Amino acid sequence: MEFKKEFNSKKEYFEKELKNYIPKIEGYQKVLFESMKYSLDAGGKRLRPILLMESTSLVGGDVEECIPFACAIEMIHTYSLIHDDLPAMDDDDLRRGKPTNHKVFGEGIAVLAGDGLLNYAFEIMINHSLKYEKESYKYLKAMNEIAKAAGVYGMIAGQVVDLESENKKIDKDTLDFIHMNKTSAMIIGALRAGAIIGGADEEQLENITAYAKNIGLGFQIVDDILDIIGDESKLGKNVGSDLENNKSTYPSLFGIEESKKIAKNLITEAKYYISNFGNKGDFLKCLADYIVDRDY
Amino acid sequence: MEFKKEFNSKKEYFEKELKNYIPKIEGYQKVLFESMKYSLDAGGKRLRPILLMESTSLVGGDVEECIPFACAIEMIHTYSLIHDDLPAMDDDDLRRGKPTNHKVFGEGIAVLAGDGLLNYAFEIMINHSLKYEKESYKYLKAMNEIAKAAGVYGMIAGQVVDLESENKKIDKDTLDFIHMNKTSAMIIGALRAGAIIGGADEEQLENITAYAKNIGLGFQIVDDILDIIGDESKLGKNVGSDLENNKSTYPSLFGIEESKKIAKNLITEAKYYISNFGNKGDFLKCLADYIVDRDY
Repeated sequence: MEFKKEFNSKKEYFEKELKNYIPKIEGYQKVLFESMKYSLDAGGKRLRPILLMESTSLVGGDVEECIPFACAIEMIHTYSLIHDDLPAMDDDDLRRGKPTNHKVFGEGIAVLAGDGLLNYAFEIMINHSLKYEKESYKYLKAMNEIAKAAGVYGMIAGQVVDLESENKKIDKDTLDFIHMNKTSAMIIGALRAGAIIGGADEEQLENITAYAKNIGLGFQIVDDILDIIGDESKLGKNVGSDLENNKSTYPSLFGIEESKKIAKNLITEAKYYISNFGNKGDFLKCLADYIVDRDY
Repeated sequence: MEFKKEFNSKKEYFEKELKNYIPKIEGYQKVLFESMKYSLDAGGKRLRPILLMESTSLVGGDVEECIPFACAIEMIHTYSLIHDDLPAMDDDDLRRGKPTNHKVFGEGIAVLAGDGLLNYAFEIMINHSLKYEKESYKYLKAMNEIAKAAGVYGMIAGQVVDLESENKKIDKDTLDFIHMNKTSAMIIGALRAGAIIGGADEEQLENITAYAKNIGLGFQIVDDILDIIGDESKLGKNVGSDLENNKSTYPSLFGIEESKKIAKNLITEAKYYISNFGNKGDFLKCLADYIVDRDY
């Protein structure tokens, strides 16, 4: 399978759909919509929506049904980046090769654009659920997965502990808590929401969740490795910021080579869980490999 | 009717219920929960949840059914205050007589506590909706009202235009847009969501919406008047900040006396719409009067 080609075609498909869900740039609050669109358009891998869509089709569902949820999870991911880049948090000037949101629109609008994207994500999911009364309970369950993943026992918890851990030595348990919540939670949420929309049974959902946990942690470890040895121009962001901020990471705790090994093992395990789906799981298997093989 | 006594008893009832919905202060992200609780506990009038509960019972619904939604709307209101007080926005040090959230917890945690409250509000509403499968579509409709009210075509739009209008002369249309979205939208959302949960029919919903629009604008005009002539110790916040920030308000456009008159007319109109409910509407009528008669 030409994985990269397939990945890009899914990405293009998603980005075309996403356009329909971005508010029109008009009205008194025009600058808000410009700011939201600026960060949504900034690209990125679109990993979470692609996982969500793939999970729906993996269990035999119709991808069209899950599009609003895929857009919603990308909006939530995007809002978290906007707020994460703020001076009061990571204080980053560059994201995906472009100036960060607050550098362009100012801090006040950046805060509100983040708030707007989070709220709008729910609006989109709710609207879609209202359209199909008979399916609405299923959509509500999918929405629940995304809300939990993004929330105070998920992504936000990870961000808080990450922020509190700057310039501190932290142990592996704390680091795992950060990774589990800051990164894995939304990957798990994406895959579980997609599977629920596709009509997964309990066993399928368990396998998908196990796959998600493993690629989630693997993804974060590789991100931390790339922050040390990655190529700034390929990554589109400053490297070395973890070191600068004295952040504890897998590479700083275990060294780069050992961290690479841990990531590879996680990916092997992830692929095991997806093997239950036969050929249909090929894309997700390749995606797992891609996560550790990105640019190093 | 002893309105103040009744209002306070509803407020106490709500605050007791709210306690059950605040996350336990534990776990690695403890400080997040402390920060969320700090602002939720800071008091305030609890106007939006009381309106929501009252609207449910006005149309004959069971108040217990709407409690999670009442808590959710208070959490959304509270998050908006936390973000609004940030240095990048209104830069306020004092809120309800206490230091603002970022003054106590720092800006980073304040941003995340706001994000957390918004997301948690949806988690609470979704959880409640999932518990009652047969009623879930109705709850979804109520959730939609709150999401719309809080979002980029509601409260957040109002905040954006408010922020953009600082140190600028704005016309009445822009000012009305700000008021309609920044304040009225959530009051309309509260009353409509409550009515939907209570099982309102179309006509009831229309009357409640008209009431909401009128008290919403009335409330904001009185707030602006109090910012000029109010008593800091009673209000628990700094007065004069609108003048300091050169904000256009009803009093600055029309003068204090004329603004008082406009507010009174809005309240009269609000009460007219509620008169269709007979005695059952007494509390909401008194509430409308209370809005213009607060402390001046």
